[in-house]
Amino acid sequence: MSFNYSERMNHISGSATREILKLTADPTIISFAGGLPAADCLPFDKVGEISDELLRGGRAEKILQYGITQGLPSAREAMIEYVKKAGVKNITLEQSIVLSGGQQGIDLMCKVFLSKGDTLLVENPTYLAVLPIAAAYEANVVGVNSGEDGLDIQDLEAKINEYKPKLLYVVPTFSNPTGRTYSLRNRIAIACLTAKHKLPVLEDDPYSKLRFEGEYVPALKSVDVGDNVVYLTSFSKIVSPGLRVAVAVGNKEIISKLEITKQGADVHTSHLSQAIVEEYLRAGYIDKQLKKITPIYKAKKDCMISAINKYMPEEFKYSEPQGGLFIWGALNADIDTEKLFPEAIARKVAYVYGNVFFADDSGHNTLRLNFSNATPERIDIGMHALGDLLKEKIKGDAR
Amino acid sequence: MSFNYSERMNHISGSATREILKLTADPTIISFAGGLPAADCLPFDKVGEISDELLRGGRAEKILQYGITQGLPSAREAMIEYVKKAGVKNITLEQSIVLSGGQQGIDLMCKVFLSKGDTLLVENPTYLAVLPIAAAYEANVVGVNSGEDGLDIQDLEAKINEYKPKLLYVVPTFSNPTGRTYSLRNRIAIACLTAKHKLPVLEDDPYSKLRFEGEYVPALKSVDVGDNVVYLTSFSKIVSPGLRVAVAVGNKEIISKLEITKQGADVHTSHLSQAIVEEYLRAGYIDKQLKKITPIYKAKKDCMISAINKYMPEEFKYSEPQGGLFIWGALNADIDTEKLFPEAIARKVAYVYGNVFFADDSGHNTLRLNFSNATPERIDIGMHALGDLLKEKIKGDAR
Repeated sequence: MSFNYSERMNHISGSATREILKLTADPTIISFAGGLPAADCLPFDKVGEISDELLRGGRAEKILQYGITQGLPSAREAMIEYVKKAGVKNITLEQSIVLSGGQQGIDLMCKVFLSKGDTLLVENPTYLAVLPIAAAYEANVVGVNSGEDGLDIQDLEAKINEYKPKLLYVVPTFSNPTGRTYSLRNRIAIACLTAKHKLPVLEDDPYSKLRFEGEYVPALKSVDVGDNVVYLTSFSKIVSPGLRVAVAVGNKEIISKLEITKQGADVHTSHLSQAIVEEYLRAGYIDKQLKKITPIYKAKKDCMISAINKYMPEEFKYSEPQGGLFIWGALNADIDTEKLFPEAIARKVAYVYGNVFFADDSGHNTLRLNFSNATPERIDIGMHALGDLLKEKIKGDAR
Repeated sequence: MSFNYSERMNHISGSATREILKLTADPTIISFAGGLPAADCLPFDKVGEISDELLRGGRAEKILQYGITQGLPSAREAMIEYVKKAGVKNITLEQSIVLSGGQQGIDLMCKVFLSKGDTLLVENPTYLAVLPIAAAYEANVVGVNSGEDGLDIQDLEAKINEYKPKLLYVVPTFSNPTGRTYSLRNRIAIACLTAKHKLPVLEDDPYSKLRFEGEYVPALKSVDVGDNVVYLTSFSKIVSPGLRVAVAVGNKEIISKLEITKQGADVHTSHLSQAIVEEYLRAGYIDKQLKKITPIYKAKKDCMISAINKYMPEEFKYSEPQGGLFIWGALNADIDTEKLFPEAIARKVAYVYGNVFFADDSGHNTLRLNFSNATPERIDIGMHALGDLLKEKIKGDAR
């Protein structure tokens, strides 16, 4: 017996990475596929101490009881202080909402802005989960060209005029999947252009704190002349993904719309998760955590870059990131990384094939490599296997 | 500057209870409005102990890391054992999904089944949060008549034929708001009729464990001849609402659709919350907790019934529940409980006016009273104030 589902279900299937993650649950496979923090970077001790104090202390009742949809006010206070360090200032409590991870921020922003047939603009390539989320609201997703400096402003303006989009989604710092960072000049241009067109923007920033070299660039939200940018940041990559906590800040009216949709989605985010992140921030652990993990991630990135130079075919072009979790690469146009994927799995190495990051399913010769999760030893072994496979493939094609 | 939102936002506003809950944050107001467990029934100690062990033990890494969307397999195992006690048997791991509270189950079932213009059938009256959730998917909500025994089966069949609904939503045990329980005979009739029409059913069961008198009735899912019933139960009313954990079990294909939509909604439920509920179940604490809290809730229910008899006008008709959290009442047809609400607040007592539970905004003379959250002393004081107000009103109307 099969049932009569909603039309939206025809447009979405399981996201590619989640399927890949299931495949890579096999511990013999070296996975460069996920976006998982390194296991040894997860702050068990501090989270354990905080949780213990919270559940034995005076806040226990509030934590176990129902609360307001926007989130614990004291948690939002601490998170507002935290976002200041990304240049996001003058945020009031009303302008903030705690979310159950960054993904919920993307989902609710799409729910608030996108009707069937409406257009969502994204960077091309973009964070792949955005595509099925927008498809679930039966929206049209259009990619904007981009380069090392950020979005192509001319293309952005042309697409605003052509598609009359309802929302723009961007990851301006250590973009997923490219690892690139938009320049301040590019951010100002995006802010001015979208303000002129009253186009709401979702700035997704899970990675900016994971900078291990180069110069800090303030958030797009910090140059938001039209108050049309919602800034979303997650604690998944720094504290813990398993706790599912993020925060969105921005225009009061938009935040109130997010609140209304969140009421229906999950009432509120787990109080224990919210309070753990709050106390983690208040105790100043986050700076210590960043001092600990950014050198580890830099070393892993260096290790992967050196493995690329050692093992990958010279046709492999990549951009070296200054932070975040990913290296983005491209091969000759005739190599299809999706078709190659089962062969890679057979050789016990996994990546994410690049076409899933493109709204138009282009980029079949690209791939995303995560360097944060595997150990340096396994990075070397996995890249060796992947390099050999690609070299054979290129050689085979040349024959 | 106001923005161009999606069409769905025209159909939803903040839900009435959440607005009422904000009003009743004032501690001088005696609230019979929410559905909050009593503060002294929340198991701080056990949750604290479990959390402490989890974060210091061998599972800490899995808890803080990303996981699969369906939920921790070991948590689902424990939850499958738990639902057996409601008569829901032979459930496999694949047929289960952990959710971020019961509300998420309602939201995702609506997302999976309802396109714009599709019909959702509900009991009239129904759990009020379902109405804005369905409105967000631009669905049509139609109420089915009901009585002491459950749904009116003739009316259900007539409405299935007339509206060709995509989904039926029911709370068969200690219904919210009426507190009524459908008979086994009524459940069998619903199961047979919906199976015949291949109509998916969401059975929402947050309350059945909170039975303090009368005989156990097995879940609708236990007589599900067509495998078209999804059984949803939440741990909010028994363990803690603040942790946000529920589980849905049912047809494998429907569960996989829930999984796909949950991927986009929040990736997965907080692992710490999932694992706390799992260990709480495994340790057998839940039976002890129920033995502790059901007599407390019974005493509060008795206290409210006796206050009704003491203070309420004789025109007030109510049904006495055998469990759950609510007493449902009706007044003379000319009393509008929504219009009366500000006067009740002025007298420091709150309830939920009944029309918000009706798909067609009828029932303006009804109201829902929660007895679980206030102390017996405050129940007496609050009901005294409410009774006086209603008596004055009825007397005034009669003049």
